[in-house]
Amino acid sequence: MAEHLSQSELDYPFKLLEYFNGFRVSKVIFSACELGVFDLLLLSQKPLSAELVAQELGASVDGIERLLDVLVGVDILEVEQIDGTACYSSTDVANLYLAKGSAKSLHDMIIYQSQTIYPLWNNMVHAVREGKNQNEKTFGISPEDIFQTIYRSEEEMLKFMGLMNSTWILDGHDIVTAFNLSCFKAMVDLGGCSGALARELSKAYPSSSVTVLDLPTVIQTARQHFSEQDDTIVFQEGDFFDGDIPPADLYILARILHDWKEEKCVQLLKKIHARCQPGGGVLLVEALLFENRRGPVMAQIFSLNMLVQTEGKEHPPSQYSNMLSFAGFHNVQVCRTGKSYDAILAIK
Amino acid sequence: MAEHLSQSELDYPFKLLEYFNGFRVSKVIFSACELGVFDLLLLSQKPLSAELVAQELGASVDGIERLLDVLVGVDILEVEQIDGTACYSSTDVANLYLAKGSAKSLHDMIIYQSQTIYPLWNNMVHAVREGKNQNEKTFGISPEDIFQTIYRSEEEMLKFMGLMNSTWILDGHDIVTAFNLSCFKAMVDLGGCSGALARELSKAYPSSSVTVLDLPTVIQTARQHFSEQDDTIVFQEGDFFDGDIPPADLYILARILHDWKEEKCVQLLKKIHARCQPGGGVLLVEALLFENRRGPVMAQIFSLNMLVQTEGKEHPPSQYSNMLSFAGFHNVQVCRTGKSYDAILAIK
Repeated sequence: MAEHLSQSELDYPFKLLEYFNGFRVSKVIFSACELGVFDLLLLSQKPLSAELVAQELGASVDGIERLLDVLVGVDILEVEQIDGTACYSSTDVANLYLAKGSAKSLHDMIIYQSQTIYPLWNNMVHAVREGKNQNEKTFGISPEDIFQTIYRSEEEMLKFMGLMNSTWILDGHDIVTAFNLSCFKAMVDLGGCSGALARELSKAYPSSSVTVLDLPTVIQTARQHFSEQDDTIVFQEGDFFDGDIPPADLYILARILHDWKEEKCVQLLKKIHARCQPGGGVLLVEALLFENRRGPVMAQIFSLNMLVQTEGKEHPPSQYSNMLSFAGFHNVQVCRTGKSYDAILAIK
Repeated sequence: MAEHLSQSELDYPFKLLEYFNGFRVSKVIFSACELGVFDLLLLSQKPLSAELVAQELGASVDGIERLLDVLVGVDILEVEQIDGTACYSSTDVANLYLAKGSAKSLHDMIIYQSQTIYPLWNNMVHAVREGKNQNEKTFGISPEDIFQTIYRSEEEMLKFMGLMNSTWILDGHDIVTAFNLSCFKAMVDLGGCSGALARELSKAYPSSSVTVLDLPTVIQTARQHFSEQDDTIVFQEGDFFDGDIPPADLYILARILHDWKEEKCVQLLKKIHARCQPGGGVLLVEALLFENRRGPVMAQIFSLNMLVQTEGKEHPPSQYSNMLSFAGFHNVQVCRTGKSYDAILAIK
């Protein structure tokens, strides 16, 4: 039996109240990010008063002061009194993950969560009742394909690609080193978006070629906004559902299968299997549920997110194994990273 | 210097990601409450499959299953396999605080947070920029008085009163026993809303009379929806800003001052002082900030909530002491309860 909330909660529900307040803590961090608080504090290199921060960011002193105070309360900023004025400074963690320019910045993940996911989740009750995504109720649009919604404007496409980019900057290294993939000389990341995961592959396996295949508009946006000088990866336009898949000996599907119903996933895996070199493989990257349904809570939350935004869901490893076997793959190996995303490797 | 997030966050930001996910955990609990999950599980007295829960609540099996799984992940529900089917049951904590009918139910607090506060906070960036509440942007209404917004329909009034009711069912006893108030024989709770705090006063001080003064529509709604058989408290219609205040030797202002600008608070305190019996007092009930600005985080969050919803803010004790002294009160005593709300007693 799962261990439930501490019995001391019965005296006073501190943990429950923390859960209730979760949305407000999220929005404090998100809002500070959107306003540029962390960028300013990183740049200034010295503690700043609320008045100065407000002035620099074109915001109200009163609002900024309250926002900074909560950030101190959750240990993301520091405060000290200088000549009787409260002055705020950043922490290493905020500088590394919350400032926009940092190498490990989660800024784009935050923008997407704040501006797209937060409003979507306001319709969770409807999603659970109806068992379907709430793009229409939230954004007033209901195209046939979910990616027509996700990419409904250049701005939204950039935001989504920013989210993917942040994700693989954070988790990519653990994912590409979950298995030794050095035997695969030609790798294709199907739906590889901004190329961030492909870059991690290329770094870890410099003697392999790495190609990102994605929809033409995505590839064009990737080339324009996310390409790097001396990029070791190749961008290629295509549609892995409706078009050809380039030859390779390793296909990567990172956060692809969780968007779609199982029939569509199996159909895609069969197509990959047909194109794959013998001895080649497929690497699935997803947040894996436990078989016993008790976690990890992040993967469970992602699964609800898939309900409210897509046609898919998260699965436990057994479900992916079944799909892979059904498509003709064998030798399925599962690696849980202990972080947000896990990896499954299967061989033709 | 405040202790900031653990240095291990620099390796991987587990705590930051938990903060980012806070809004999703909140919405999982809120949605389950709105759908009636906890009421059903309390009633059934035995573990139920997702299929049965979905059927009883008129929701999709797939949506309910994902929702229940997250609730297991955050230890609010339990799951076990019965004849190969996952069956879910409640925990003591969920039965006590999340089911609707329970004596300590926070159901009404959750409904208000989910349906009113969550959408308001989606405009936090605007609130911080402009330094003012976002009722107009969120709900399309902008009356002069914030309570015209909060009470903009009977439904909204009932929801707000439900919130207040839940709050004092949870925190009322600690508040009324923070000081020994038995010397005050006539108590008036100004803006006492549903009467939940007044009832706690009446229980703790059975030889004192307790009157709730609030706006006529609020009192009418309180009488209709929140009165109890053999109620020991008296409801009285009035307006403490624009009308008369009844005579008493203890006035209670619970979560009143934090709604308003300081001038208006001092004006109200002066009016109370003028009406108060000599030796009588005023009891302020608020979430008190620390003087050093480093917490408590709940009070800091409430202060931002006041920005996005009202004209007021939370203060540290020194600020309330100043207002009280300025209004003519003395002998100011502060009691922090360690829970969500604190108490300040001052004497005429």
